[in-house]
Amino acid sequence: MNEQLRSKLTTLLESSDESKQALLSLLEGVEEKHNGNYKTYLAALMGISSRLMNENTYESIIPNRVLVHNPLGITHGGITASLMDIAMGSLVHQFLPKQQAAVTSEMKIHFLSSGTGSELRCLSTAILKSDTRWVVEANVYRDDQKLVATATGTFMIITKKA
Amino acid sequence: MNEQLRSKLTTLLESSDESKQALLSLLEGVEEKHNGNYKTYLAALMGISSRLMNENTYESIIPNRVLVHNPLGITHGGITASLMDIAMGSLVHQFLPKQQAAVTSEMKIHFLSSGTGSELRCLSTAILKSDTRWVVEANVYRDDQKLVATATGTFMIITKKA
Amino acid sequence: MNEQLRSKLTTLLESSDESKQALLSLLEGVEEKHNGNYKTYLAALMGISSRLMNENTYESIIPNRVLVHNPLGITHGGITASLMDIAMGSLVHQFLPKQQAAVTSEMKIHFLSSGTGSELRCLSTAILKSDTRWVVEANVYRDDQKLVATATGTFMIITKKA
Amino acid sequence: MNEQLRSKLTTLLESSDESKQALLSLLEGVEEKHNGNYKTYLAALMGISSRLMNENTYESIIPNRVLVHNPLGITHGGITASLMDIAMGSLVHQFLPKQQAAVTSEMKIHFLSSGTGSELRCLSTAILKSDTRWVVEANVYRDDQKLVATATGTFMIITKKA
Repeated sequence: MNEQLRSKLTTLLESSDESKQALLSLLEGVEEKHNGNYKTYLAALMGISSRLMNENTYESIIPNRVLVHNPLGITHGGITASLMDIAMGSLVHQFLPKQQAAVTSEMKIHFLSSGTGSELRCLSTAILKSDTRWVVEANVYRDDQKLVATATGTFMIITKKA
Repeated sequence: MNEQLRSKLTTLLESSDESKQALLSLLEGVEEKHNGNYKTYLAALMGISSRLMNENTYESIIPNRVLVHNPLGITHGGITASLMDIAMGSLVHQFLPKQQAAVTSEMKIHFLSSGTGSELRCLSTAILKSDTRWVVEANVYRDDQKLVATATGTFMIITKKA
Repeated sequence: MNEQLRSKLTTLLESSDESKQALLSLLEGVEEKHNGNYKTYLAALMGISSRLMNENTYESIIPNRVLVHNPLGITHGGITASLMDIAMGSLVHQFLPKQQAAVTSEMKIHFLSSGTGSELRCLSTAILKSDTRWVVEANVYRDDQKLVATATGTFMIITKKA
Repeated sequence: MNEQLRSKLTTLLESSDESKQALLSLLEGVEEKHNGNYKTYLAALMGISSRLMNENTYESIIPNRVLVHNPLGITHGGITASLMDIAMGSLVHQFLPKQQAAVTSEMKIHFLSSGTGSELRCLSTAILKSDTRWVVEANVYRDDQKLVATATGTFMIITKKA
């Protein structure tokens, strides 16, 4: 496989600057995933960084790179949806005991403004916490604080198999 | 940038087979995007292939590779959401005149079964077609025909700037 | 209270034919509820009649009377939403053992066409049946078979207190 | 019809106190509708009272009477849904010019806690205002300020026929 990878890369070095920029983001993402800094390729490639701001609010930020753009040059709706799904699920996992996990059962998203600017910032908050399900709300903002998208999701709490 | 890319690749050639497999998928995706076979990196990296099956049904398939998995080894919910968003939007674009475009205004997804198997197959159908908005339904199936997810989305029809 | 009721009725007998028509529907609804033919006033006043068509499909019909109209003379969205909530929940209850009940945890509705004609017919089908939750889809049709609304709902299965 | 109404009422005067209480609410609702204090029977029977609290928040309150209960003695989900649909739509209408109207195109509701207590209070806020659609959020609270339900809805702006 190494030969195949080297050959593909050599071809791509002849392509556009945009392609190479995207490629660099991807190689860095794979490296981060391999180093254990991310649990999924999706999160690693998107470059999500998250933190619990306070006991109710979880912040998740992604750089708004060409890699995540749609044909109009703004953040792809699928990326915004992924950001919100990952952010809301991560919030729940912050509070679950080790033997439990949260699984997205449904999610609804409103796309409100174009995802422009340098980064997207998602703030997640739980609005219901029960033994069987959590309901979470997420809001995505851009640099100028305009609301890009809002979502709610239901996360079923399951017990991990021993 | 070429030097940086070569150096990153060399490092990654020392990583795991899984990483290299993911990397190969990514390099192929960037190549496909550069060659104009896809309009976005997201669609290219997911390796979506689509076709209009009949005047009401649009089929979109992605390989279920390690690249799109979540920590449990099944398709990431964000990927399933992206697949459905892309599929439903593409369906609408099949029928719009050149000067119009469709923008996702909202989407709701139910996640019903684990995304396992070799590929995910999404079937999209329009349930409302008006001058200002289309409402579309999408269902994602796995190899054994089990329903993985179902979604509805609203797409606003806009006139492109000249 | 009897005197108060008689007095109110006497006043209303002087009002419009429309009011009296609505009133008659309401009195009949209260009577049906009192006689045990309905479990809630809402279902009784709407005059819902339901049946299990086959093991997958549950049919619920309401007359499209002035009582359920909005200011435009078509079925009120709240009534359509109520019809779908009642219909989907009733479907689930058809299959639950006596000691269990289903509670709506979330519902999403698309309103697609005006609710005109003599009656609205709702067909409900389960798309996921698990021990903890059912996901149900409902479609509402009018006399000319046009789709008025489509909805999905999640119903949490709970064990009744002894 | 007057004879029919009187006869029905006479029968119902022999029924339970609960029935008569419900009946009184209904007669009052029809009277209010006839007097032009409500635009629909649904809103009149629910006894909604609303006001614009400030330029962003619209408050809508209903008494939590037996008339709106489900078999468990708490507010029927269909009533909560109707309250939110009416409240969000009314908010939009506060700001539209006379020749325009708002039509609910979709709505998603999370039911979070039982609707108990003496009344339900719905607060609605617009989160997107464009020429073609408004997106509105509504939250329903009970006496003890617990969140009973949360919803988002999309309202299409149409021009009334002359």
